[in-house]
Amino acid sequence: MSWQCPGFLFAGAVAGIKKKGGLDIGLIASEAPASCAAVFTRNRVRAAPVRLSRRNLRNSQGLVRGIIVNSGNANACTGPGGARDAGRMAELAARAIGAAPGEVLVASTGVIGQRLPMDRVEAGIHSAGVSLYDQGFAAFSEAIMTTDRRPKVASHPLTLGGRPITLMGCTKGAGMIAPNMATTLTFIVTDAGIDPARLDPMVRRAVGGTYNAMTVDGDQSTNDMLAVMASGVAGTLDDADHARFGDALLALCADLAHQLMSDGEGVHHVVTIAVRGATSETAARAVARKVATSPLVKTAIAGADPNWGRILCAIGNAGVQIDARAIEVAFDDVPIVAHSTAVPDLDDARAAAVMQKPAYTIAIDLHQGEHRGQYLACDLSHEYVSINADYRS
Amino acid sequence: MSWQCPGFLFAGAVAGIKKKGGLDIGLIASEAPASCAAVFTRNRVRAAPVRLSRRNLRNSQGLVRGIIVNSGNANACTGPGGARDAGRMAELAARAIGAAPGEVLVASTGVIGQRLPMDRVEAGIHSAGVSLYDQGFAAFSEAIMTTDRRPKVASHPLTLGGRPITLMGCTKGAGMIAPNMATTLTFIVTDAGIDPARLDPMVRRAVGGTYNAMTVDGDQSTNDMLAVMASGVAGTLDDADHARFGDALLALCADLAHQLMSDGEGVHHVVTIAVRGATSETAARAVARKVATSPLVKTAIAGADPNWGRILCAIGNAGVQIDARAIEVAFDDVPIVAHSTAVPDLDDARAAAVMQKPAYTIAIDLHQGEHRGQYLACDLSHEYVSINADYRS
Repeated sequence: MSWQCPGFLFAGAVAGIKKKGGLDIGLIASEAPASCAAVFTRNRVRAAPVRLSRRNLRNSQGLVRGIIVNSGNANACTGPGGARDAGRMAELAARAIGAAPGEVLVASTGVIGQRLPMDRVEAGIHSAGVSLYDQGFAAFSEAIMTTDRRPKVASHPLTLGGRPITLMGCTKGAGMIAPNMATTLTFIVTDAGIDPARLDPMVRRAVGGTYNAMTVDGDQSTNDMLAVMASGVAGTLDDADHARFGDALLALCADLAHQLMSDGEGVHHVVTIAVRGATSETAARAVARKVATSPLVKTAIAGADPNWGRILCAIGNAGVQIDARAIEVAFDDVPIVAHSTAVPDLDDARAAAVMQKPAYTIAIDLHQGEHRGQYLACDLSHEYVSINADYRS
Repeated sequence: MSWQCPGFLFAGAVAGIKKKGGLDIGLIASEAPASCAAVFTRNRVRAAPVRLSRRNLRNSQGLVRGIIVNSGNANACTGPGGARDAGRMAELAARAIGAAPGEVLVASTGVIGQRLPMDRVEAGIHSAGVSLYDQGFAAFSEAIMTTDRRPKVASHPLTLGGRPITLMGCTKGAGMIAPNMATTLTFIVTDAGIDPARLDPMVRRAVGGTYNAMTVDGDQSTNDMLAVMASGVAGTLDDADHARFGDALLALCADLAHQLMSDGEGVHHVVTIAVRGATSETAARAVARKVATSPLVKTAIAGADPNWGRILCAIGNAGVQIDARAIEVAFDDVPIVAHSTAVPDLDDARAAAVMQKPAYTIAIDLHQGEHRGQYLACDLSHEYVSINADYRS
């Protein structure tokens, strides 16, 4: 596909912020005010660009003209000077696209605690502004990368009311495991026409089931952000189309989230922890999350070791009332545990074979109720430690 | 010192449960019913011996005659047969020391999900029974080890009302990081005379500030247990002595907990996360715990990398309302962060030098209130991954 979205222009530019070089300024511009909805990190320590973007999104009532992104420096924990730098980025981007600064969102990712080299940033934003074009999405998706091994893009074309609709996005994060915080940033554009007020709950639902249900190391960065812009160039959605669009947005986020996990340095296995039989969705999600974040489970995944006792131990630590004698566990279609103990004919070789696969499911049935919840997990490997311990900031 | 405690006999025996050989049955016997208080894992998946010991402690109203321990097999997730095995261990130990089965506590540690080899256990308990003697504490403290590199014992002699009092204990756990769950077990004896009802809150206070305020990987095992037995041979404590005894018990637990962390395979740095200036003790503890469990902080500790941004990020993720612009951080006496950003004259070399030490403090001031809380943390190293990922159960 061509990676274009009617109504939008994109650019990537080299500003010299990243030590290793390459594109490090990304710009999205909408020709007219676009509906926008976004979610931001729930970390109480928020970087300056996150604070500014939340403010601008609220004050503009969800109608924005552009997003300016830099990689190589997170502009986090940088004090009042950092807040001024983020404001300056919005001003420069607004000037480059002919908008007001309040109509621009700002995102940053990279090292924490260092001020941005604003002379370079200024030149980079100028350069991005003059190179904006309708086919610039590939350059944009590369410009937002930090330690990511490859750009991660996805599209989910759909037809609504007989009209073709474009829905595409890109994400970065190296599985949130890279040095210096490894912020997750995601930008999605569509030419569908949707009210900001209707777009917002769709975005929250899509994120809740995907980005907010995955973990590499259990932490949220100071800079996390996911934003969706809708130009409306393809016409306003009918009431009936909203549900289908919401489903498509969820599918797109699931695709991007899975790519994000797979690209994590040191990640060899992306494992879906699927819990059912819980008394509530909250309980199911809590159990899935505890299993997904347990270092003992994650090292067992790394070693392809069907050490099911660690999974039961993690379930018991989830802070959820469970029937400790009823638990059932399977790896894909291989039964492992029934009634909270090993199945009589447990086939260790088959269990280990599932765990060799790059992607598989650990299915847990609590046998207590009707509710389900899941989490995307990965292994805790030597590479994770190398990347994060051996690296010097 | 001689590691004796009036009123108690100890033994260690070889039953052949541990694959690698060595002492694997430990027995403590009190000549008369002793006051006992204990805390058990809060994991909802509890091993059979934990369920039995809770029941016996309750039904005996805190007066017990002995504790039987095996290492090499956790008797966890072993179904109804495992419960029968734990009951049989209590019976055999009771017979060996001339008590009723309901007066005996049982503890197990080792692989999970496998039934105990009861013929060996039976021979081992018999052997321990015949070798009980007043100087058997060293053998007992060795018999409870799994992957621990060395026995961990401590004593805290004190004089109360002019009389010398013995207070000593041992612990195992290899920092809770070893394969197959690495249960923490701790056994403490004293010849002081204390009511079970007064001993219980002292034990909870001591554990709250030590064992429950440390983390290697954030998980509790299915088998964790800490028990204190008081023979009363040295006479009953006066009212005035109780506070001093409680403080001594806390100091003993702190000593044992620190030894436990230091002995963790792959642990090179034991770091106290000391939070002050919080609005409540709960908030202070929550922040300390989040910093202590953050994989990004733990890998920074492993790499001796003064990457303070990770600490601020973890603080922000603690789920506690904080003033994100007021945070102060120091490594021992080296200032690192003020007003949530690097101190102007941050000395990276001095900061890194502190982080090379085997034990140091990360002091965090939230500048919001008067409350404090702390957690004991350690590094997340390559050895941790090797031990837990490369090991096959």
